[in-house]
Amino acid sequence: RTLDRQPMPPGRPRDLPKAAWIGYPGDYEIWLGNQVQNRRTERGAFFPPFWKLDNHYVLVDFRKSFDLPGPEYIQFQFQGRHNIKLDGKINLDFGTLYLQPGHHTIEIKVFNESSPPALYAAGTYVISDTSWQVTIEDKEWIDASGKASDKSGTVWQPAEPLPGDDPAHWRLATQPQAASRIERKKNGDLLLDFGKETFGYLHIHGGRGKGKGGYLITYGESREEALAINTSEVQDFVTFSDSGRIDTVLPMSRAFRYVRIMPIGTWVDSASMLYEYSPLAQRGSFRCSDTTINHIWDVAAYTFHLNTREFFLDGIKRDRWIWSGDAYQSYLMNYYLFFDSATVMRTLWALRGKDPVTSHINTIMDYSFYWFMGIYDYYRYTGDTAFIRAVYPRMVTLMSWVMQRRNKDGWLEGMPGDWLFIDWADGLTKKGELSFEQLLFVRSLETMTLCAGLADDPAGAGTYRREAAGLRTRLFTDFWDPRRQAFVYSRVDGQQDGKILRYTNMFSIFFGYLDEAQQDAVRKNVLLNDSIQKITTPYMQFYELEALCAMGEQEHVLKQMKDYWGGMLSLGATTFWEQYDPNEKGVQHYAMYGRPFGKSLCHAWGASPLYLLGKYYLGVRPLSPGYATYAVTPVLGGLKWMEGEVPTPHGNIKVYCSRTRIQVHAVTGEGTLQFKSKSRPVCKAAIRAVGNNLYELTLQNNNDYTIDYAAID
Amino acid sequence: RTLDRQPMPPGRPRDLPKAAWIGYPGDYEIWLGNQVQNRRTERGAFFPPFWKLDNHYVLVDFRKSFDLPGPEYIQFQFQGRHNIKLDGKINLDFGTLYLQPGHHTIEIKVFNESSPPALYAAGTYVISDTSWQVTIEDKEWIDASGKASDKSGTVWQPAEPLPGDDPAHWRLATQPQAASRIERKKNGDLLLDFGKETFGYLHIHGGRGKGKGGYLITYGESREEALAINTSEVQDFVTFSDSGRIDTVLPMSRAFRYVRIMPIGTWVDSASMLYEYSPLAQRGSFRCSDTTINHIWDVAAYTFHLNTREFFLDGIKRDRWIWSGDAYQSYLMNYYLFFDSATVMRTLWALRGKDPVTSHINTIMDYSFYWFMGIYDYYRYTGDTAFIRAVYPRMVTLMSWVMQRRNKDGWLEGMPGDWLFIDWADGLTKKGELSFEQLLFVRSLETMTLCAGLADDPAGAGTYRREAAGLRTRLFTDFWDPRRQAFVYSRVDGQQDGKILRYTNMFSIFFGYLDEAQQDAVRKNVLLNDSIQKITTPYMQFYELEALCAMGEQEHVLKQMKDYWGGMLSLGATTFWEQYDPNEKGVQHYAMYGRPFGKSLCHAWGASPLYLLGKYYLGVRPLSPGYATYAVTPVLGGLKWMEGEVPTPHGNIKVYCSRTRIQVHAVTGEGTLQFKSKSRPVCKAAIRAVGNNLYELTLQNNNDYTIDYAAID
Repeated sequence: RTLDRQPMPPGRPRDLPKAAWIGYPGDYEIWLGNQVQNRRTERGAFFPPFWKLDNHYVLVDFRKSFDLPGPEYIQFQFQGRHNIKLDGKINLDFGTLYLQPGHHTIEIKVFNESSPPALYAAGTYVISDTSWQVTIEDKEWIDASGKASDKSGTVWQPAEPLPGDDPAHWRLATQPQAASRIERKKNGDLLLDFGKETFGYLHIHGGRGKGKGGYLITYGESREEALAINTSEVQDFVTFSDSGRIDTVLPMSRAFRYVRIMPIGTWVDSASMLYEYSPLAQRGSFRCSDTTINHIWDVAAYTFHLNTREFFLDGIKRDRWIWSGDAYQSYLMNYYLFFDSATVMRTLWALRGKDPVTSHINTIMDYSFYWFMGIYDYYRYTGDTAFIRAVYPRMVTLMSWVMQRRNKDGWLEGMPGDWLFIDWADGLTKKGELSFEQLLFVRSLETMTLCAGLADDPAGAGTYRREAAGLRTRLFTDFWDPRRQAFVYSRVDGQQDGKILRYTNMFSIFFGYLDEAQQDAVRKNVLLNDSIQKITTPYMQFYELEALCAMGEQEHVLKQMKDYWGGMLSLGATTFWEQYDPNEKGVQHYAMYGRPFGKSLCHAWGASPLYLLGKYYLGVRPLSPGYATYAVTPVLGGLKWMEGEVPTPHGNIKVYCSRTRIQVHAVTGEGTLQFKSKSRPVCKAAIRAVGNNLYELTLQNNNDYTIDYAAID
Repeated sequence: RTLDRQPMPPGRPRDLPKAAWIGYPGDYEIWLGNQVQNRRTERGAFFPPFWKLDNHYVLVDFRKSFDLPGPEYIQFQFQGRHNIKLDGKINLDFGTLYLQPGHHTIEIKVFNESSPPALYAAGTYVISDTSWQVTIEDKEWIDASGKASDKSGTVWQPAEPLPGDDPAHWRLATQPQAASRIERKKNGDLLLDFGKETFGYLHIHGGRGKGKGGYLITYGESREEALAINTSEVQDFVTFSDSGRIDTVLPMSRAFRYVRIMPIGTWVDSASMLYEYSPLAQRGSFRCSDTTINHIWDVAAYTFHLNTREFFLDGIKRDRWIWSGDAYQSYLMNYYLFFDSATVMRTLWALRGKDPVTSHINTIMDYSFYWFMGIYDYYRYTGDTAFIRAVYPRMVTLMSWVMQRRNKDGWLEGMPGDWLFIDWADGLTKKGELSFEQLLFVRSLETMTLCAGLADDPAGAGTYRREAAGLRTRLFTDFWDPRRQAFVYSRVDGQQDGKILRYTNMFSIFFGYLDEAQQDAVRKNVLLNDSIQKITTPYMQFYELEALCAMGEQEHVLKQMKDYWGGMLSLGATTFWEQYDPNEKGVQHYAMYGRPFGKSLCHAWGASPLYLLGKYYLGVRPLSPGYATYAVTPVLGGLKWMEGEVPTPHGNIKVYCSRTRIQVHAVTGEGTLQFKSKSRPVCKAAIRAVGNNLYELTLQNNNDYTIDYAAID
């Protein structure tokens, strides 16, 4: 019977619906995260993360029940050892199934240790997609008579689509790129300048030599770094026997603008690179009357694109790791540039890993909270409940781990192994209850409340709602200084420490936790108060500027942007940096972590103008999940005019705004355009005056609106 | 600097201490368990387990601090990508380290997805062994200035030694074995008979042919199975292009006595096999005046050896899986044959898997409890506290998962996904509270109490002690029928069901839970009562006979052994079976699970005479952990004489016993020989009369004792 091979497959039907590789939710991302994060090297040495790396489930069961209207022929592909059960009977596997019309159930088990078990099925009616269910334990035993158990203990859930035609070897796109300038030294060394920061695989042309030897390659984000063979952060050494061939593409992708190639007993004719990038469409755009701001936006978009890879990375040169606090900002920027949900979901899954929880995400307390908040924002921008349902169980286990670490007052203090990061800044003590951590904790509990509702956990929703409300009230009891009208930095042994810093205060503004009087006080006493310690990282600038924008300080923020980001540009930056201090000079700008080239010159958190300009100048943001309703509130902030597009799940919202005219292209859903005008604005659509020079207009599906008005200074 | 290669290694010092590959505790076993258990095929189809398969941690940190008296040269090997940090600095890795005298710390990270990260270090002073520490998260971050965090949150534990010279490819031993008889059919088919059940890789000699075709190979534990190409359980099909060569060793090992090779359009000259076995010394032995019992012991030892592989398997033909209930008996047999701790530990780790717990072990409630009990016995026989400390955290998480599933009375009922197995027997309802499960639960809580003490968890020990004591008392309140003086089978809605079966009653005897009156009642009302449903599996025979032996019924048990195991031998068994019913005829013996050859004819649980004869006839057992003190209580049970050896951590205890003479070779530790004699026994050592014809003698280190006495019938 083993020899009864199935007949040869007929010509494959045309116009098959599109099948996708499928796998167990969240597993591919964890596995891919291991691949990507372990690409970090430090001066040639492998440099993996210092937190627990989880892994995919090695055995996954897939199943689908369906009714066939006609005969069916299904071709399968697998990544892993597998079996196929058709209607309860194990089938000899020739990679295909012929089925008669009627009801069928297919159950497939796939085992794979080195990459996630994956399935691809292409039939006329039956294809692999998210209608398949998966589990990691079918618990299907038989008794001594051969009768199968009932399966009531088994948790099945929707399969997850995997990227590419070969998920185990999925790679980003590449294209050849030449250096813009090549210097040849007398000793044969080559120094390549690619004109701007870039990322990819070095391609060596015309390499040759005899016997032992090779090439030492030093990469530099700056020319100085590429030339500093003793201290440059990233190096490769290619031994001649390794390359052998005349043309060699190096196996590891690297970040650089400059590359120095030192042939040792060998010769190199030339070199170029394969630029590697995530092939995402840049849906958002921004142009305005200020050329510096336009330049900032372009460089921010490029910086962000370089760091948007398999995941949202912190920086492309050094860590190449997924850091939750960094990624949180990337999610937000993404909603104003690519609106790519896949990269957000991949990043969230990879960050979370598996149960049991043994530490905060990336070991950092605040980074656990950014993970929750990232889910909140993802739902707000995309309205994707399927993802919330899939990830909710891991939200519960992380939150319950966090809750178990509270002190007697219900607040979180640092325990052994907890990193309380907040920001790279001097003098941030980590003792006692830090108000910033408690604030994010409350926000995370609010996220849990929302998601519990979406994931059919009303009991959980109730608990989280009570906890969030109680703690939000007690934030003010415990950390608000009524005399100075601001949040203090921390409380030690139940006593406020009296120190006031920007962090808690600025977040509480765009969280909407302050009433108008409190907000005004914080603006004056903290945000616009130069005696309060300044922020030096683009990371926290992101939030500081967001808080100011949320209070209508767009004009002030525009100046800050031009100063800070414009400052980097005037130093020749082609991408934005991990940190920038205008007081530093020359190569001082490149040092960090005690190393002369330790700083990343292409850091995702440097790209925040993308978000600020889209959300607070063009003024586009969702009011209900997935842009079912949304706001358009253009604010020129001192610009003469601006125009741009903001992506949504239903297409792009387009905004043009000058001091006399506003034009909006609306999308499916209902938008509300809001603006101030000295005079009664003119538009074909109905405009509502809401008092105090404020006007509103309802934006309908896919319509274009033109409003003539008079801007107020 | 990258080019500053270390000088070539000098000649390696002689007489290096023996290094071992090391890894993260329990991980190698889980990984190996996946390899082994996924070797099951059913008629050619891959057939993985139906429970969750866990996997190893992919990133492991190793470290060791030490003081060197002289210069040191260490050679490393790794399984995985890795880096080496020496005294806090990442070292360029050339697989070797030269160290100056003094204090050093080596930290190594190894990443490997396809097999467990592993390290081998061979120096003069420093070698890889269990003095190294490991963790899966070192949580060692640095601040912006490059300063490292303190590591107080990191849990380090002793590394675990891994087997072999290449753990990722560790294999059992093999040796060539010829068939004892080969039949050639007219059509070219070959039928090989290896004379007895065996296990290994089929080796095809002189295969040749043209074009398409190959060999269909059917394996049989019986001749009938090998000939039944439509229903035999295990088959291989070798396509000619696969084999190509004249001589082919098949890639998968199989269990069989008979092999049928059907060449399809090809020709085979002959075939043999590579016998595959765990190379363990058979330390235990038994010989007596009864040749049937000797034959039973030999076949049991062979049966047990075949099933003692990388792990203790249930049976070698079909599942080849690790089942906790089956393994539990294997641990006990092992203590009387191989005394191999490594196989016990591997099996316990692999069965337990990782957190979070999502089901009972093998999905079976009783199998979770056998897992705990196996740890109890392991400690009792070996005294190995290091293993208890290593495995204790997973004991805690499994027990806490179990505890959360209790009903309002604190008992365990079957919940969705729980398999309540007990035994293959007719009419075992699984409704309500089964007394058998509660009994094992109490025993497991007692194990937790013991292990909590060994693992420095006094709080846990207290909790478990209270729980165990309370439930042990309530076993009698809730499940003991005072009228019929026996445990009932179950309680439904708080009412005893009135059904009395052997299981709970016989276990309670050798658990020592019954007083003398209760024990006598159970003996009479249950165990020796033919109206109580009989046991038909060697699995539960194991415990029934143990209970009878524990009550001194050795003579009765000897007859049972000769009947039951002797019955299989008289049917030509060369190994003992999964189940045996004397009422069945011919090929009926081979059927199970609704399949004509579904039954395993070589099943570990069939080998229980090894344990019974060693523990209850030679009478050797530990009284305190690791045989620090022990008992020797020979009971002839109707035999004229017997002699044998029982392995201990300190060497073999040897016992000879006839009706007039007892000889014992003692080991390190203190033994107590106890026996009955009609007359005052004679011995050079001091003998104590303890009344009622009972005598005792203290056995000292490595001494030999000869006692002349007069056996009582």
